[in-house]
Amino acid sequence: MASAPTVHAPAAGSTTSLQGPREETGLEGAVPIFKAADVVIERSPTFSAKPEVTTLVFGNVFTDHMLTVEWTGDEGWKKPHIRPFHNLSVHPASSALHYAVQLFEGMKAYWGQDGRVRLFRPMLNMKRMLKSAERACLPSFDGEELLECIRKLVETDQDWVPRSDSASLYIRPVLIGTEPSLGVKKPSRALLYVILSPVGSYFSTSTKPLSLWADPKYIRAWKGGTGDCKMGGNYGNSIYAQYEAAAYGCQQVLWLYGEDHQITEAGTMNLFLHWINEDGEEELATPPLDGVILPGITRQSIIELAQKWGEFKVSERSITMAHLERALKENRVMELFGSGTACVVSPVGHIMYQGKSLHLPWQENTPRLSSRLLKELTDIQYGRIPSDWSFLV
Amino acid sequence: MASAPTVHAPAAGSTTSLQGPREETGLEGAVPIFKAADVVIERSPTFSAKPEVTTLVFGNVFTDHMLTVEWTGDEGWKKPHIRPFHNLSVHPASSALHYAVQLFEGMKAYWGQDGRVRLFRPMLNMKRMLKSAERACLPSFDGEELLECIRKLVETDQDWVPRSDSASLYIRPVLIGTEPSLGVKKPSRALLYVILSPVGSYFSTSTKPLSLWADPKYIRAWKGGTGDCKMGGNYGNSIYAQYEAAAYGCQQVLWLYGEDHQITEAGTMNLFLHWINEDGEEELATPPLDGVILPGITRQSIIELAQKWGEFKVSERSITMAHLERALKENRVMELFGSGTACVVSPVGHIMYQGKSLHLPWQENTPRLSSRLLKELTDIQYGRIPSDWSFLV
Repeated sequence: MASAPTVHAPAAGSTTSLQGPREETGLEGAVPIFKAADVVIERSPTFSAKPEVTTLVFGNVFTDHMLTVEWTGDEGWKKPHIRPFHNLSVHPASSALHYAVQLFEGMKAYWGQDGRVRLFRPMLNMKRMLKSAERACLPSFDGEELLECIRKLVETDQDWVPRSDSASLYIRPVLIGTEPSLGVKKPSRALLYVILSPVGSYFSTSTKPLSLWADPKYIRAWKGGTGDCKMGGNYGNSIYAQYEAAAYGCQQVLWLYGEDHQITEAGTMNLFLHWINEDGEEELATPPLDGVILPGITRQSIIELAQKWGEFKVSERSITMAHLERALKENRVMELFGSGTACVVSPVGHIMYQGKSLHLPWQENTPRLSSRLLKELTDIQYGRIPSDWSFLV
Repeated sequence: MASAPTVHAPAAGSTTSLQGPREETGLEGAVPIFKAADVVIERSPTFSAKPEVTTLVFGNVFTDHMLTVEWTGDEGWKKPHIRPFHNLSVHPASSALHYAVQLFEGMKAYWGQDGRVRLFRPMLNMKRMLKSAERACLPSFDGEELLECIRKLVETDQDWVPRSDSASLYIRPVLIGTEPSLGVKKPSRALLYVILSPVGSYFSTSTKPLSLWADPKYIRAWKGGTGDCKMGGNYGNSIYAQYEAAAYGCQQVLWLYGEDHQITEAGTMNLFLHWINEDGEEELATPPLDGVILPGITRQSIIELAQKWGEFKVSERSITMAHLERALKENRVMELFGSGTACVVSPVGHIMYQGKSLHLPWQENTPRLSSRLLKELTDIQYGRIPSDWSFLV
């Protein structure tokens, strides 16, 4: 009992919509797009000091400018503005603050040794953002136009892109409902904005493998919910478990799902298991996009890279804790690692589960697939090797 | 497969905490309380026109003043302020906007024919708010002190309490994370605020019974999630389904759960079934607080009233769609109705489910339990009968 049927979960980068009465949302009366050609740039009269690359932590310093685009149900999108970074003036009844009518994206701009700034597959972020917007009943827009606005914003603050291949400029697009009334309904007003933050690595202990705490008493996402969209509610709801993980000496939560304790995500990362599977095949496995998994851009890129190499089986399949424990016992695990825009690729060192501390091989197995993927991905991101996944700013 | 274990779900009004390493959340270093005796009142120099009672819709007009209390991890709570209603100045990286670190409550102030303004069991709201705050990793406070601050706010704007027994002054306490950085973590800054809105009835068609759309493809809440707390993420995630319900000509979603299609809530209401149960007993049944049900104050009050009457069995028990369909076929259903602070008690007229339109008896059965409960609750709320559930402003 108590298992919900699967809902349709389009992959990141797919243009498939969630099923639903889109024509009934009332969002279609508005002008569907804003144009990057209309961006109004107001340069900041002052410039903040840029932090040393070595002192960067994740997301607490912001650049001099931000992008804002307002929307109303009656008038549609207004002109995009690049303005000095500023606090938002928000009506206290805004649906973003009461009902989490909000979504975000995460991207990075990388400084290459050739002096060019690049983004990594940014149209996949735009498509995922549009999918989140539909699920959140927030207004749609043209992803290519937003990307061009973001390009202009990064160009405006390009001096903030760290000149380092261990740092980058994190790009945070946000779309919030600013409906100033208390009914639970689609907003009649919204604000899209983008802020930029120079960042180092996401984890302060990035040179060490991660420790994960796995307890099925907290569930990150469920079928029929919004775990496959980048909506704020998926994140705030997870923080409590994160501190319980910390109380057990672990850095992140390993999110389990179902009575069979399926492995889904860790913290805010997708997960990959590199192992010899039950059939004796070398396999890189990651949970399928069945509605509870965020369709990560790094996840998709790892799958595509490994498929292109063609050296081992690559599968989107269910992995349970029982699968993992048995494989560990039988010495069939090469590596478990997380993936994400913020962390790129992060190996897992151990898992606390049902009173046991499961040791994951990491230092024992070299060369490591995670190191190879990290190098391949960052070589593309920092422009050390040419790729059509690079987008020049 | 795929069913999660139950988590501990304290009832509204209980002081039981969620299990978890509270001592590890880092919120305890801060001053744990603010005092109503410290409230600083700054009166608005201008006063808005008060709307006609007959024109009121839910939550789109606000009074002249609001309450704000700021918190930081280093310094704890600052003094509460009653100030002119104003937009909030919010850092664009605030965790309330990115990660839905937010919660709210809903209460009402009622104008009695004796000229006194009353709240209804407000300490239950304070206790539920504290439970939501713990789950959201937002700071704790003294519920009695907040209630006294709210009392002062309502007193300040008492001319806004509608002189009508079909309207009231809705009270919306909100607590948001204002952490100005992008890591997913407990906030180091927060803002508690309260706004007031004169309201009529929640549903524009309140004289007619509600129509509900029941489809298990969207799930409101999940065991191991936050459906038993009043956190924003539970609400924004539900809006998409609401518009699908509307496309099918229904007003609200009937939220189902599990493979057996358990009836849980409708829209933002708890649900009650008044019927002759499988054992031939007259019963008032409502789903149990098993982690997916919001512990409503009206829900609790209906249970307590019916228990006090002692005229029929009152049960917190699972009700599935199969139970309901069979009982409808066998003519054992007296009434299905929703309950909540906004709607009080609202009978259900029909349910769309698996291509069928299920007709719920409503006009056929008189006297109706929903009418009796509505009268009893509103008699207490408007001070027509004395009760220790009344709290005088």
